Amino acid sequence: MRSDPDRLRFEIVARDGDARAGVLHTPHGTVETPCFVPLATRGAVKGMLPAEVEDLGFEMVLGNTYHLMLAPGEELIAARGGLHGFMGWERPIITDSGGFQVFSLAHGSVADEVKGRRGAPTSAGGVLEIAEEGVRFRSYIDGSEHFLSPERSMEVQAGLGSDIALVFDECTPVHADRDYTARSTERTHRWLGRCLDWHAEHGPPGQAVYGIVQGGTHEDLRRESVDAVSAAGVDGLAIGGTLGRDKEEMGEVLEMTTGLLPREAPVHLLGIGEPDDLVRNITLGIDSFDCAVPTRLGRHGMALAPMPERRYRYDVSRAAHATDDGPLVDGCPCPACARFSRAYIHYLCRADELTGVRLVTIHNLAYIEAIVSGAREAILAGRLAAFRDAILAGAAPWEAG
Amino acid sequence: MRSDPDRLRFEIVARDGDARAGVLHTPHGTVETPCFVPLATRGAVKGMLPAEVEDLGFEMVLGNTYHLMLAPGEELIAARGGLHGFMGWERPIITDSGGFQVFSLAHGSVADEVKGRRGAPTSAGGVLEIAEEGVRFRSYIDGSEHFLSPERSMEVQAGLGSDIALVFDECTPVHADRDYTARSTERTHRWLGRCLDWHAEHGPPGQAVYGIVQGGTHEDLRRESVDAVSAAGVDGLAIGGTLGRDKEEMGEVLEMTTGLLPREAPVHLLGIGEPDDLVRNITLGIDSFDCAVPTRLGRHGMALAPMPERRYRYDVSRAAHATDDGPLVDGCPCPACARFSRAYIHYLCRADELTGVRLVTIHNLAYIEAIVSGAREAILAGRLAAFRDAILAGAAPWEAG
Repeated sequence: MRSDPDRLRFEIVARDGDARAGVLHTPHGTVETPCFVPLATRGAVKGMLPAEVEDLGFEMVLGNTYHLMLAPGEELIAARGGLHGFMGWERPIITDSGGFQVFSLAHGSVADEVKGRRGAPTSAGGVLEIAEEGVRFRSYIDGSEHFLSPERSMEVQAGLGSDIALVFDECTPVHADRDYTARSTERTHRWLGRCLDWHAEHGPPGQAVYGIVQGGTHEDLRRESVDAVSAAGVDGLAIGGTLGRDKEEMGEVLEMTTGLLPREAPVHLLGIGEPDDLVRNITLGIDSFDCAVPTRLGRHGMALAPMPERRYRYDVSRAAHATDDGPLVDGCPCPACARFSRAYIHYLCRADELTGVRLVTIHNLAYIEAIVSGAREAILAGRLAAFRDAILAGAAPWEAG
Repeated sequence: MRSDPDRLRFEIVARDGDARAGVLHTPHGTVETPCFVPLATRGAVKGMLPAEVEDLGFEMVLGNTYHLMLAPGEELIAARGGLHGFMGWERPIITDSGGFQVFSLAHGSVADEVKGRRGAPTSAGGVLEIAEEGVRFRSYIDGSEHFLSPERSMEVQAGLGSDIALVFDECTPVHADRDYTARSTERTHRWLGRCLDWHAEHGPPGQAVYGIVQGGTHEDLRRESVDAVSAAGVDGLAIGGTLGRDKEEMGEVLEMTTGLLPREAPVHLLGIGEPDDLVRNITLGIDSFDCAVPTRLGRHGMALAPMPERRYRYDVSRAAHATDDGPLVDGCPCPACARFSRAYIHYLCRADELTGVRLVTIHNLAYIEAIVSGAREAILAGRLAAFRDAILAGAAPWEAG
């Protein structure tokens, strides 16, 4: 681990058990943790403008190396002030490495696994070759051939100019056996070294690099991976790879993995962020999260709500909501719930009106933000366990304090 | 004509030739004219929230009887404070009668004609019968059978609680012959009487009613229609029906028709609102306009611009714009142009990102608003002809003053 005040500095301001409230200091300002990082996969949080994302309380977004290298290309973005300038977001940005996307093309995605689907590629593109040097694949946009490697991923992320870059890794699938996972994790560590070598020579001075802990569901492999990543001189750690077949196994893998982590490093959990995941994993010491859930559910008219028995969501377009004059969630202080009824949003979603998607997306993002900022308050007050238990029992985040 | 201060009062504050600057006083506040009325066809300006529409300078929106009666139904809306309460728009609302939509199913739409298409129904629904009593048709949503008549249209609009209702009429197509147009226009006048009779007995006290002038491209029929509508005791007039095969004929028909209108009544032009249409017809004395152009073009990545030779628009997603660091239109003060480059919006539109649609829609609405508010300023200063000529010659609205 390293801590370089000219790029990333992680200040822990309070601890509550293994959890901590902190501040990430980056060249584009500070981020209070624990935090949720909305996806700006292709340079925009879906349907939202940057000022609106900021107004909801978010301080960092996540851009996607894989999508942005295919279009419009990192050179075009670099020439426009990097991703900050291109998309008009002046606060911190984290970029993922593209590893998750290219390996999802080959293996099926982690999201598929958690949802009980397996193996099927989730995109029209395709992987041509996975080798020590890197991964050759076809663009899902036009079928053109592309290559991603540790060096190329860091080069793209340098062009994007993110505050935090992620190293290029293989995201191992749950159906990989121990042998495959062990060999893949070792290769991920070799790739980590290549990423850091490239970055030391060519990376933007202010850009921090997080290493990614792999190792699947195997404790010894996770331990080896934590040791390798920590020793490599990264600015923070991200937890990647499969976390098991269901939420129970995910909880065990994350409890085991977080127990191995260095105590002072900032830790990001990749791609996980449902309400119960957030409070459980903040308790384990995770500092930041990204996840498609709030925006993707919004596009499908699914509103987040304090309903643990229904995975914290309901379908606004169901007939039962047609005449409901309450807001999406009672007591919710978000801009959608403050002004619009469930009946109106139900109607818009049924009519496929973009305004409906926007209102549910705004609510979902605000709901997630209320959970992570509520958790931060709880850590500062030394009562995170009670906050977590209240969320898990079905309290709304603004009532769980 | 009537002018009842308890519902609509039209105050003319300045004249410049046949044009006028005015104020519509309604139960939900005032509207400065000339004005453009964005479409909230199904209870939302596409992709926008009410506060955003207001922030762009609009004071009135237009809801659609046909769509809102099919879903969610006017009873549901009436029980939620009418369309104002349901959609959260506290300013004036005008509702159209549904006549245009049901006759478009039978004839093809006026928009199709102006664009050189003809005859094809524009929706999956269908008209079952057109009779003196009214029109039977199938819902485009679920195929269920519905009936619209003068009384039923006014009943729906009463439920919607608009500030200005439009009478139920037949929108005659350009390919109708003189005989059909004459008979249709006479029936429209009988329907006008039935609308006003129903409204006098059951209409909401504050709701004004505009009659619709038909008569196709025939001067004698337009004159008869103006006389019939003016004599019927309406609060304002709208110009409907075919305006000819192209913009040249439209100009002639509108010059002829506006020359016949009573001098003090507010006049609305239905469904027309491209930049050149606005300045030409404001010059002829039209006070308000509605049109799908700014929002529909926005959804297709077409940005309004001072390019008369290209129908005042260009396709942002064309490759030429990929590296253009300027705004959608140089000097445009709209929120999209103030913060985002053409290259960024180009990328979002190519990537089918909702944020791209929103940015072009915001720009287009702001561009149209700048034209009508610029025209108002010009009327107040007695130099509308120069403003019109500048817009027609390719000046941006903020430079045309």
